[in-house]
Amino acid sequence: MLTLHIGNKNYSSWSMRPWVLMTQAGIPFEEVLLRFDSFDPASQFKRQATALSPSATVPVLVDDGLVVWDTLAIAEYLAERFPDKALWPRDVATRALARSVCAQMHSGFGALRQHFPMNIEAHLPAVGARVLREQPAVLEDLERLQSLWEALLARHGGPLLFDGFSIADAFFAPVVMRLKTYAVPVSARVQAYMAAVLALPGVARWVADALAEHDFRPFEEPYRQGPDPA
Amino acid sequence: MLTLHIGNKNYSSWSMRPWVLMTQAGIPFEEVLLRFDSFDPASQFKRQATALSPSATVPVLVDDGLVVWDTLAIAEYLAERFPDKALWPRDVATRALARSVCAQMHSGFGALRQHFPMNIEAHLPAVGARVLREQPAVLEDLERLQSLWEALLARHGGPLLFDGFSIADAFFAPVVMRLKTYAVPVSARVQAYMAAVLALPGVARWVADALAEHDFRPFEEPYRQGPDPA
Repeated sequence: MLTLHIGNKNYSSWSMRPWVLMTQAGIPFEEVLLRFDSFDPASQFKRQATALSPSATVPVLVDDGLVVWDTLAIAEYLAERFPDKALWPRDVATRALARSVCAQMHSGFGALRQHFPMNIEAHLPAVGARVLREQPAVLEDLERLQSLWEALLARHGGPLLFDGFSIADAFFAPVVMRLKTYAVPVSARVQAYMAAVLALPGVARWVADALAEHDFRPFEEPYRQGPDPA
Repeated sequence: MLTLHIGNKNYSSWSMRPWVLMTQAGIPFEEVLLRFDSFDPASQFKRQATALSPSATVPVLVDDGLVVWDTLAIAEYLAERFPDKALWPRDVATRALARSVCAQMHSGFGALRQHFPMNIEAHLPAVGARVLREQPAVLEDLERLQSLWEALLARHGGPLLFDGFSIADAFFAPVVMRLKTYAVPVSARVQAYMAAVLALPGVARWVADALAEHDFRPFEEPYRQGPDPA
């Protein structure tokens, strides 16, 4: 049996990736939420995460005692374990391309990630506009991201990045959430991609769970003083 | 024919990984050096890198027109293309473990990477000691790194992280260079691992090339005003 350990659904962009991947692909698993109380070494979250894996982070996948951590390693493990799900594109060259964009997401887009932290329940268009005015590095990341998506979508006509749902869409799903929260202006083609991702049942379920959480974590909130009025 | 595009060998830790991997595994390739003139969008480096791949970074592997970028995607591509080289451990559970530590390296150890940039020709023990005093996050990264290595080495007795050279050793080779440059105190077991990595012919060749470069790049040098006296 597979167990996926995750963080708060409203905030944990890394946790969202394998959860959406498995849910959307129809791979059964149990989930265990490690609530973000703080990231201090003495926090309950860090103590639980340290007991789980050497990285002391979420997500962590446990398969019958085998511990796999870090989103990319989890994705590769699942792709091998469930070959019939075609989590990566089946063609060698297309698979190399999909792995390239996922690895780029995994180690890159630092400015975008820093200034636009995932916060699914929040709606922060004014913050978005200010960051775009003041942070050229975020603008650069967004340009690079959009031209990457546009090239992939143009390649085979969309609606997703490759032919059918793949690990790549799971990897960019949290980015779609950020573009939405901060109301980043995007092209029509990117808008259509965002709509397609948001319409994936696996993504919609994660978003519904995130909205039901109501667990405002101040250390994950550089832009809000408290939850938005209901 | 495989072509690997890389940056300056003294500084480019990302480039070192696939170069060492291919050299050590005996995979023939041509290398193309994109010299770091600056990382400004108008620099020759950035213009060349932008023409090569959507990430505008090195390394980039080109295989008969197929462009693969980002170290982890390159490693996975090579593992698939050369199955007889066993670049990942052959056992499923051990491979999942190796992928977990590589992915952790790929997205983590940020403080270590920021404060101890790779600089193979430099010898900076005083900087190392000062950073260890002043930057608790670096110390945390080092503790996590060392206990990760120790657990892997204890698991099967060394001298490398898994049974025989693997992608994991290529991924940590630049970290070994950093520990050496900044003279970080390490346990006997970690010292033995560092010696084993430095003795790999693929690593030794990269280091020899780096030392022959003599190409001081001020924007890669937070700690030196000029090259050390010969």
